[in-house]
Amino acid sequence: MEKLNLSDPKITDIRVIDLRFPTSLQQIGSDAVNKDPDYSAAYCILETDARVEGHGLTFTLGRGTELCVSAIRYLGRLVRGRRLSSLTDDMAAFSRELTRDSQFRWLGPEKGVVHLATAALLNAVWDLYARTQKKPLWKLLADFEPEQIIRSIDFSYITDAITPGEALALLKERASCKEARLAALERHGYPAYTTSVGWFGFSDDKVRRLCREGLRQGWTHFKLKVGGDPADDLRRARLVRGEIGPTNKLMMDANQKWEVEEAIQRTNELAEVDPWWMEEPTSPDDILGHARIRREVSVRIATGEHCHNRVMFKQLMQAGAMDVCQIDSCRLAGVNENLAVLLMAAKFEIPVCPHAGGVGLCECVQHLAIFDYLCVSTSLENRVTEFVDHLHEHFVDPVRIVNGHYVLPQQPGYSTEIRSETLVTHSYPDGPVWKEIGDHARE
Amino acid sequence: MEKLNLSDPKITDIRVIDLRFPTSLQQIGSDAVNKDPDYSAAYCILETDARVEGHGLTFTLGRGTELCVSAIRYLGRLVRGRRLSSLTDDMAAFSRELTRDSQFRWLGPEKGVVHLATAALLNAVWDLYARTQKKPLWKLLADFEPEQIIRSIDFSYITDAITPGEALALLKERASCKEARLAALERHGYPAYTTSVGWFGFSDDKVRRLCREGLRQGWTHFKLKVGGDPADDLRRARLVRGEIGPTNKLMMDANQKWEVEEAIQRTNELAEVDPWWMEEPTSPDDILGHARIRREVSVRIATGEHCHNRVMFKQLMQAGAMDVCQIDSCRLAGVNENLAVLLMAAKFEIPVCPHAGGVGLCECVQHLAIFDYLCVSTSLENRVTEFVDHLHEHFVDPVRIVNGHYVLPQQPGYSTEIRSETLVTHSYPDGPVWKEIGDHARE
Repeated sequence: MEKLNLSDPKITDIRVIDLRFPTSLQQIGSDAVNKDPDYSAAYCILETDARVEGHGLTFTLGRGTELCVSAIRYLGRLVRGRRLSSLTDDMAAFSRELTRDSQFRWLGPEKGVVHLATAALLNAVWDLYARTQKKPLWKLLADFEPEQIIRSIDFSYITDAITPGEALALLKERASCKEARLAALERHGYPAYTTSVGWFGFSDDKVRRLCREGLRQGWTHFKLKVGGDPADDLRRARLVRGEIGPTNKLMMDANQKWEVEEAIQRTNELAEVDPWWMEEPTSPDDILGHARIRREVSVRIATGEHCHNRVMFKQLMQAGAMDVCQIDSCRLAGVNENLAVLLMAAKFEIPVCPHAGGVGLCECVQHLAIFDYLCVSTSLENRVTEFVDHLHEHFVDPVRIVNGHYVLPQQPGYSTEIRSETLVTHSYPDGPVWKEIGDHARE
Repeated sequence: MEKLNLSDPKITDIRVIDLRFPTSLQQIGSDAVNKDPDYSAAYCILETDARVEGHGLTFTLGRGTELCVSAIRYLGRLVRGRRLSSLTDDMAAFSRELTRDSQFRWLGPEKGVVHLATAALLNAVWDLYARTQKKPLWKLLADFEPEQIIRSIDFSYITDAITPGEALALLKERASCKEARLAALERHGYPAYTTSVGWFGFSDDKVRRLCREGLRQGWTHFKLKVGGDPADDLRRARLVRGEIGPTNKLMMDANQKWEVEEAIQRTNELAEVDPWWMEEPTSPDDILGHARIRREVSVRIATGEHCHNRVMFKQLMQAGAMDVCQIDSCRLAGVNENLAVLLMAAKFEIPVCPHAGGVGLCECVQHLAIFDYLCVSTSLENRVTEFVDHLHEHFVDPVRIVNGHYVLPQQPGYSTEIRSETLVTHSYPDGPVWKEIGDHARE
């Protein structure tokens, strides 16, 4: 008979939940393209034979979350009945099992619904792994030997940009003074910026009020949604610049609204208010388009939240298409693929400023940003992680922000666990929150 | 009371069916990456208030087809209850309704499961449209005024490569002598090549026998799957070259197996047998990788069957990454997005050789290739459409091949209709074919 092993539990089952929050009712999250998001998550719980669970999620905008839920259920067969160590001993091989299923792969490969589902499942495995080691995820990673990090990464299709050997050398070379960097983070936290002031659907008065509140709370970097009527964009941008003054940073996000040539023109027009970056000026798939925009404007170009895998990030870097690399903890295939992108970004000397917000993205990316600083980039220059102040109350170990910085999370795991009440109240379509909203919102 | 209108029916409902064929049992369709496909389709039928239906599908490999089925059901709400003309009067706007749903879009955008589903639905609308006009799809398109073609295309994110004005001018300039081209196609058919001889799982003897049969049937272009052990690849390639002689064309398909540098080396090694093209040497997302491979080998580079939207095709062309453009009727968003790619290919002077095989791809792409010759490329030079001889017996109007050429389809529609018996026998998981195979195949 097998005996219980608390550090290497067996995964006995996987529960998958369709969780949705009716954020569209308050225009939270509205931008030039995403008019009415209901922030949602396809959420999974790895149940084990020990007193520990793994929680993972992928972020969605409402309708269609059920597709990710179905895909996670399908992939769940690849973890059910297995010991954790059979996944974590060779994480790269395990992630390839998920991305290379010979029939499922056709639906991507490594993009869209099936990749979002892969992210949720891998995130749950990492959460479980960190919990069994009794460490927050950032510390689990930072305590790894460089070889262990490398073994977690699927290098397929990126070896022309970075080989495992190069990546290993980079990690070894940057290992010194890690304790000093950790002490600095413990003192100040990891720098963040706020997107909560400038959603598309907010009135000028509300934007003004939120800027003032933000300044009082210690924020120094503010992001504004653009991509609407040019005169409106400029008025709102001047308004924010007027409120935050000339030295604080103002970033802009067009959320993929423009054609390439339009993006060049519009970005150059908005340059008057000195944007620190222009984010997603056009299609997230348009590597060459971003490269051309970057060449023809005076503003730094940021992208990545819709960049669907490491192969696309590789090319954005090779093509000189990005100044700011915005990884997403739930669109890339979990922690593993994010590690690949962190290493490429370090090699190409591009700062990583993770995308966050939504449901749980802030909780996740803080770990990745902290690990990046401790072991990969070893720099905070031009690095800030997005923060959006919504829905954190639903998390068991929510992010904490002090003076515009993320405070280092201390609880074991990946901070992905959602409170058990919320799993009931916001489950879709049968949770009480949705029953109450009724047929109108359910559409 | 509204009256019945046979040329402009109202769509009353949409039926969606998960259809799967147990092709993995015979290693049909096996290649270096896809080891055991069960050729499948997420299939939809637009029912109307008139005596006409629209049939559309997207091709899949078995597991996961249910995700596309769910996504089509979701998108179906955008056609139910509408008159056909409300979709076809502005096809570009209608396709944007499907691709830009403000919440669903997050799951792509325009890629993966949601885009495959969009393809199935748009294909069904085009089938219905052609049936109401009593024309095969190729003729419906060829009879359009150039302005109507342009109105069918969503040019967003590609205007830096081709504007609607440029595309219109190109179509107008190439309209002359269309009748002569049609007469030539009616005489000879549209040139095709066969992939049926060289699947990965076939023995050398079987490959040899199939080559001989192919030659007897009039084939002049043969495709072989590579990407296995280098010595095996070379042995099989020499075998096929030996059978088909020095003047017939031998194409190779690596199905995304290699890293960029590996692809360069392997392709150069295989150059000895004079391949007419090397297909999918690496990740389908790797535009810059394909461009580099193309620069560093002496063999022409083909790709596209996994290219997920017009933005990716645009870049493959802009980057000089492809010699042969392999559109897919079911991965791009239906006829509309394929029209966009045909026009870009014409502008960049890249021959289009559609990907086919699977379930129904041959039936679809013949229409696109014929239209391309009649109205867009106006050339047959270096142009052949893939043909794979499986599963045609399930179609009401199957492709006909004579002497290595597709015979022009004559029945109204897009040739997408599957026989009603098949819809019952092969429905998954409850059709009798799958009941018989039982739990083993069902996993």
